[in-house]
Amino acid sequence: MDVIQNFNQLTASLKASGKKKRIAVVCADDPHTEYALSRALEEGIADCVLLGDATRLKAYPALKAYPDRVEIIHITDVDRAAREAVRLVRQGKADILMKGIINTDNLLHAILDKEHGLLPKGRLLTHLACMQIPSYNKLLFVTDAAVIPNPTLQQREEMIRYAIRVCHRFGIMQPRVALIHCTEKVSPKFPLSLDYAELVEQDAAGLFGDAIVDGPMDVKTALDRESGLVKGIASTIEGQADVLIFPDIEAGNVFYKTISLFTDAQMAGLLQGPDCPVVVTSRGDTGLTKYYSIAMACLTA
Amino acid sequence: MDVIQNFNQLTASLKASGKKKRIAVVCADDPHTEYALSRALEEGIADCVLLGDATRLKAYPALKAYPDRVEIIHITDVDRAAREAVRLVRQGKADILMKGIINTDNLLHAILDKEHGLLPKGRLLTHLACMQIPSYNKLLFVTDAAVIPNPTLQQREEMIRYAIRVCHRFGIMQPRVALIHCTEKVSPKFPLSLDYAELVEQDAAGLFGDAIVDGPMDVKTALDRESGLVKGIASTIEGQADVLIFPDIEAGNVFYKTISLFTDAQMAGLLQGPDCPVVVTSRGDTGLTKYYSIAMACLTA
Repeated sequence: MDVIQNFNQLTASLKASGKKKRIAVVCADDPHTEYALSRALEEGIADCVLLGDATRLKAYPALKAYPDRVEIIHITDVDRAAREAVRLVRQGKADILMKGIINTDNLLHAILDKEHGLLPKGRLLTHLACMQIPSYNKLLFVTDAAVIPNPTLQQREEMIRYAIRVCHRFGIMQPRVALIHCTEKVSPKFPLSLDYAELVEQDAAGLFGDAIVDGPMDVKTALDRESGLVKGIASTIEGQADVLIFPDIEAGNVFYKTISLFTDAQMAGLLQGPDCPVVVTSRGDTGLTKYYSIAMACLTA
Repeated sequence: MDVIQNFNQLTASLKASGKKKRIAVVCADDPHTEYALSRALEEGIADCVLLGDATRLKAYPALKAYPDRVEIIHITDVDRAAREAVRLVRQGKADILMKGIINTDNLLHAILDKEHGLLPKGRLLTHLACMQIPSYNKLLFVTDAAVIPNPTLQQREEMIRYAIRVCHRFGIMQPRVALIHCTEKVSPKFPLSLDYAELVEQDAAGLFGDAIVDGPMDVKTALDRESGLVKGIASTIEGQADVLIFPDIEAGNVFYKTISLFTDAQMAGLLQGPDCPVVVTSRGDTGLTKYYSIAMACLTA
């Protein structure tokens, strides 16, 4: 399989595979979600079932163009719509769950339901973003900018495993995973650096399979070979990270927001952990971000 | 006084003032430091005293051009050179301290010496960066990307006061100080957000003088009016922050490194707290960053 290095190649790869996924969308009635879905229909990578207010959903012209590929289930109560969407996934009638204008908390409530939800007991729920940054030569995966405030060592192991699994789906057979920290020194002054040293040891012991895990290192060393050389840091990442693991949600969020504000990057993002990929883009995200997130979900579902 | 909105205006303002500061430089023998010093001499904003290996220092042609404005003190031991530079500042013979290729720790050792150092008891030592980002319409001050791992509430108050004081020197009479956080919600789930709420109250009570302190808010809301509007956040910062206060060193460092890697920003930075500004740029910094840091020091000394 060829490595998918940008979002255009992602769409092309999905089209070439000829397989279509089915997306259950909870309350799709906003223009950005409509754009994303009609683009997914147009590219032929997915069909969808829309759960929400049918009178509003039927008004979208783009969706009317594909009557046999768009099902509409009329439910006006958002929590019921969320539960029904989750049920469709559990019954194998949908492969991907997507949030429309419902609050994330309401959707999560349905996902996290112990009896009827989608997150098996003991499984970690976390967020994985994927960025196409113009001046970086490949896609960059980032975790966690949105869900886990302060990952424990064990949670971080799980986040690394999720990211590696997704990279493999993108054809990146030996993803380079950089453990981000303000300094490259391992010292008890920074307890996190000790966790990182442990993760690097686990990688050396082969516990992460086909991957290179290294750190602590700062953002520049992870993403720019020259910066590492200047600092005299010899890392197997070689300034060519595929994945950045951030210290906590604050650092991850700062990276995500700074990239999105100051570069012309394209973004995608998914919840990891549930039995199917979940698209939970936020109010500020564009229609294109929602479309790329759908595409990322189609590849990894 | 006119507001200084970029580094060219900073140099112009220093030249117009007609005042020259004196910089004590510890181990100046690297090309980037030489560039920065010769530029400062050329612009006429500073004189300097170089402490280090005289045979190497004398080899720099740019410094030879100003024999009456460059003093060389021959000391081969780096720790002795650092102590002597600190002594010059204490005696009023220098206004600014600057690190050459000595390790930061060695220089800090001399600064932090209880009897002969530069940091009065109880004073916080922290880092304040200043960035000129092409797509942002003014200078942006950022703290702390380098020194304090996890600021306490009291330390954060002090960091805000340092930043406001420096902004006033730049002619920003009512600086907008944004308290950065991954979400705008104040909740016990995020203890830091409670500290932020307290700081906002202190500001409302006038404890920070001429300034607007607001948060929690994310990087996009702090720096882009549109992003705040989309999220429905009404902040007195209005997406026009002069200062970003980061949750901790990890988040601050990620911002600093991401901006420096992915935008064509110019950077400067100083230690705050000691009796004089201290320029402690790092191995990866350019000559221009060192020069702008000197200029920032000249304005605030």
